[in-house]
Amino acid sequence: MPQVAIQVRGGREPESIRRLISAVTEAVVTTLDAAPATVRVIVTEVPTTHWANGDVTLAEAALVSGSAVHD
Amino acid sequence: MPQVAIQVRGGREPESIRRLISAVTEAVVTTLDAAPATVRVIVTEVPTTHWANGDVTLAEAALVSGSAVHD
Amino acid sequence: MPQVAIQVRGGREPESIRRLISAVTEAVVTTLDAAPATVRVIVTEVPTTHWANGDVTLAEAALVSGSAVHD
Amino acid sequence: MPQVAIQVRGGREPESIRRLISAVTEAVVTTLDAAPATVRVIVTEVPTTHWANGDVTLAEAALVSGSAVHD
Amino acid sequence: MPQVAIQVRGGREPESIRRLISAVTEAVVTTLDAAPATVRVIVTEVPTTHWANGDVTLAEAALVSGSAVHD
Amino acid sequence: MPQVAIQVRGGREPESIRRLISAVTEAVVTTLDAAPATVRVIVTEVPTTHWANGDVTLAEAALVSGSAVHD
Repeated sequence: MPQVAIQVRGGREPESIRRLISAVTEAVVTTLDAAPATVRVIVTEVPTTHWANGDVTLAEAALVSGSAVHD
Repeated sequence: MPQVAIQVRGGREPESIRRLISAVTEAVVTTLDAAPATVRVIVTEVPTTHWANGDVTLAEAALVSGSAVHD
Repeated sequence: MPQVAIQVRGGREPESIRRLISAVTEAVVTTLDAAPATVRVIVTEVPTTHWANGDVTLAEAALVSGSAVHD
Repeated sequence: MPQVAIQVRGGREPESIRRLISAVTEAVVTTLDAAPATVRVIVTEVPTTHWANGDVTLAEAALVSGSAVHD
Repeated sequence: MPQVAIQVRGGREPESIRRLISAVTEAVVTTLDAAPATVRVIVTEVPTTHWANGDVTLAEAALVSGSAVHD
Repeated sequence: MPQVAIQVRGGREPESIRRLISAVTEAVVTTLDAAPATVRVIVTEVPTTHWANGDVTLAEAALVSGSAVHD
C-alpha cells in the first residue's frame, strides 16, 4: 500500500520521469514485498526558482556553474 | 483547525473541484465538530503522466481503456 | 484515484478519526464520481505543540481559553 | 538537515518568493543552529481557486473584498 | 536534488525500511543521473487505523483477511 | 494565508522547536506582508532512522561522526 511522493526540479525529459516511476515502483515492491498494484507514485516538478538549498536556488546554482541545472 | 490536502488527476472541470472543496469541508466540520473557518483545503491537480499506480500512469491507463481518464 | 491527506491536532477520539475518514471518502466519491476503492485517505495527528497559527501553538491557545484544545 | 515546504497563493512577484526563501532559511539556521547548506526550502504556488478556508476560496474572498487577493 | 517522501503502514521491520531507503535512492540515482548525496529520502510510518482505501482502513482489512496487515 | 510544513530530525529540545515556529512565522509575515494570524506552521519530527541523504541515515551519520546527530 506504499505511497511515494517524489519532487524533482522542473525541465526533465518525460522519458526520464517515466523511468523514475518504474524504478521506484520496482524498488518498493522488491524491498517491502508489496503487491505492485498497491504502490502509488506521484512525481512533482518544482520550478528551479522555487527550490533552494542553503538559500541558493537551483536556478542560481545553474548560473554559477555555467551549465544547465543538473540532477 | 484541520488541514486537508487533496491530490486529483489534472483535467477536471473547475466546478467539480469547487464542489469537492465544499463537500470535504462539510465532512470535516461535521465529523470533527470543527469551526468551519478553521478548515483549510488545498487541491492539487497532478498531470496524468506523473501519477502511477502499479507502474501504470493514469495517462497509460486511459489509453488502454480506450476512453478518457476517469476516477 | 484521489489522494487525501488530512492533518488534525493530536488527542482526538479514535471514533472521531474513523468517522472523518468515512465522511471525507464519501465526499470525494460523490463530487468527483470516483470509484470508492480508488480513494485513499491518510490522517496524521499533529502534536498541539507542533502546530501554530499566527505564532500561537494549539497547546498555547488551549491554555489561554482555559479549556481543552478544540477542533 | 531541515526541510521546509511552503505553500503560498499563486500570483506573487518572483522577488517576493525569493525573499521568502532567504528569510525562512535564515530563520531555520538561526533557531536550529543548522548548517545553512543543509536547509532545503521548496515553495509551491497554489492557484487561488484551489485553496479554501472555511469553504471560501482565496479567489472568492478577493472578489468579496473588491480588491486583489492579499497575503 | 530529488526529494522522496514515502508513506508506509506502521509496524514493519526496521531492516525493511532501511532496505527500502537504499533501493529507492539507487532507483533515483540511476534513472535521473543524480549525484547520490543530493537524494533525500524520508519515510513515514502511518498507523493502520489512520490509512484507508475505499473507506476500509488497513487495520480493518487485516481483520477481514484473518491475517496480519500485509504490504 | 501561507502554509509552512517543516520537517526536522527527531530529538530536538521543545524550546528549539518553539523558537523555530516563531522565527519562521516572522520570516513569512515580513517577506510576504501577510497577516500573522493567517500563517500556519506545522513541524514534524522525523526519526533519524527514517531520514537519509545519499543513502546514509541521520542515525548512521551520527555514529560515523562519533557524536550526537547534528544539523
